[in-house]
Amino acid sequence: MGIKHFCLVGSGGVGTIASLVLTKSALARVTVVLRSKYNYVLEHGWEIDSVDHGKISRWKPYRVVRSAVEAATVKEVEYDYVVVATKALPSLNPVVKMISPVITPGKTTVVLIQNGIGIEQDIVKAYPGNVVMSSVSHIGSEVQEPNVVVQVGKDVSKTGPHLHGGVDDSRSMAKARSFVEMYIAGGAHTCELVSDIQTARWEKLLWNGAFNTVCALMRMDVGELQRSNGRETLLVPMIIVQWMAYRLPDDCAYRPSMLLDLENGRPMEVDVILGNALAKAREVGVETPVLSVVYNLLVLEEWKIGQRTAGKT
Amino acid sequence: MGIKHFCLVGSGGVGTIASLVLTKSALARVTVVLRSKYNYVLEHGWEIDSVDHGKISRWKPYRVVRSAVEAATVKEVEYDYVVVATKALPSLNPVVKMISPVITPGKTTVVLIQNGIGIEQDIVKAYPGNVVMSSVSHIGSEVQEPNVVVQVGKDVSKTGPHLHGGVDDSRSMAKARSFVEMYIAGGAHTCELVSDIQTARWEKLLWNGAFNTVCALMRMDVGELQRSNGRETLLVPMIIVQWMAYRLPDDCAYRPSMLLDLENGRPMEVDVILGNALAKAREVGVETPVLSVVYNLLVLEEWKIGQRTAGKT
Repeated sequence: MGIKHFCLVGSGGVGTIASLVLTKSALARVTVVLRSKYNYVLEHGWEIDSVDHGKISRWKPYRVVRSAVEAATVKEVEYDYVVVATKALPSLNPVVKMISPVITPGKTTVVLIQNGIGIEQDIVKAYPGNVVMSSVSHIGSEVQEPNVVVQVGKDVSKTGPHLHGGVDDSRSMAKARSFVEMYIAGGAHTCELVSDIQTARWEKLLWNGAFNTVCALMRMDVGELQRSNGRETLLVPMIIVQWMAYRLPDDCAYRPSMLLDLENGRPMEVDVILGNALAKAREVGVETPVLSVVYNLLVLEEWKIGQRTAGKT
Repeated sequence: MGIKHFCLVGSGGVGTIASLVLTKSALARVTVVLRSKYNYVLEHGWEIDSVDHGKISRWKPYRVVRSAVEAATVKEVEYDYVVVATKALPSLNPVVKMISPVITPGKTTVVLIQNGIGIEQDIVKAYPGNVVMSSVSHIGSEVQEPNVVVQVGKDVSKTGPHLHGGVDDSRSMAKARSFVEMYIAGGAHTCELVSDIQTARWEKLLWNGAFNTVCALMRMDVGELQRSNGRETLLVPMIIVQWMAYRLPDDCAYRPSMLLDLENGRPMEVDVILGNALAKAREVGVETPVLSVVYNLLVLEEWKIGQRTAGKT
């Protein structure tokens, strides 16, 4: 299998490790789109401290560029894969708009390493002849300013194609398999190819949709939420699979992503972690009394963040 | 009518103005229980800046004491009225325990100037032969440390007896009427005697149970909540009487009491403003999907405040 050409958008903790893994496979040539960090990383590279890959100083991918438009201009060939590892914020930052310059219709495979559900439809609609696939990642990795990537949680993921009518299932599966082979060759801890990625997405969502959302709303870590009786009054009624409410120990100091976003005044993944699931529940007639209230409260938190961002508060 | 002997517990913004009004009536001799402020107020009195009473410097009631026990010891006669103007925190600070030293069974009338509903039962149970009455106050008044009382909102209240089996209704009504006459004589803006005080209590609660609770949970003032669409997604579904959700203007910067308590790490009146109403709803079979979630979330906020107070977080 020859060298594949990748473009990666969203070089945070998750995306930078993905670009490292793909590069280490020696099967991929990765162009990374950087915005604010472009100048710094171009000069200094990344300082990586990884539970999977050890310490790597001044690491750079094959190429860094300032925008997807630049990534499209400088490319010597069309991209085989575009990897999206941004936060999933469909209304603020739609993926289609982000990647359109680097997509070759009918050719480029779109790989979404993102949270939540309902993230594929817009892409399939815009590029009905392209393979779309996604990863459910359990990596723990973050960027510390300006260029340090600290990966404390092993890179464990499930990856699979999002089958849709515009592409033969066998072709979608082949592209996903090829990606997984590269990802494993690059030294990721675990990357499992699955045929039904939506089940994996919902599995993660069952915990995330309850714990992540209530932790954010209450500014509490997982352990606090469990010790406070909030598990019994809120999480158990929210979670369909009850054992998930008891999976983590009561001294677990984990602060889920939406809590970190809220504390830092950043937009949260409310739509893909909760809004889309509630739309699905309405569609199939499932009552969601607690989740709906939590959703509406989080929308208010987003409104506040938006007001502050707009300098109105 | 002769001088009546009053003991007042809870000399905050509301209570201190009440002690002033009763004193100004020249029909009441008011002993005020002060804890932390005893020494300061004994020496300097209160500095009052009131929309109803103007500026009054170094004002003192008839007597200040350190505790209800001291109030009982120094009294020359039994108290005709005990006025409770504390925050209503039945589990942290039960009223019966607070006032028991100054109650003469069968004689002393208990006046509750407090928020919420379900605040009378414990007192009736402890003193079945005593008149219990309450005021629903719309005063805006607060204490600024150490001894300044700023009253910006007129002293408007409804007052009436809590009728119960241990006391003849006519006697309860007479004691309430007598209190209202004194309160009007003392120059309060408006004090209306009502025969059905529970209706007045529920009226205030209909707004308070929704706006006060969600403002606190969301750290938003009334106008922000209304402008954010939270009125439509949360308050309208919570409030039985819809026009109440549209009573105040969208630029209203009012920060309700529970929000101020939460911001200052003080216990909130969750039980009397929401918990007791939800218990009543369960009793009569009314569904409260949104209110119950908001209640459970506020209980978590209280847990956090308790943890901080206990120095555990």
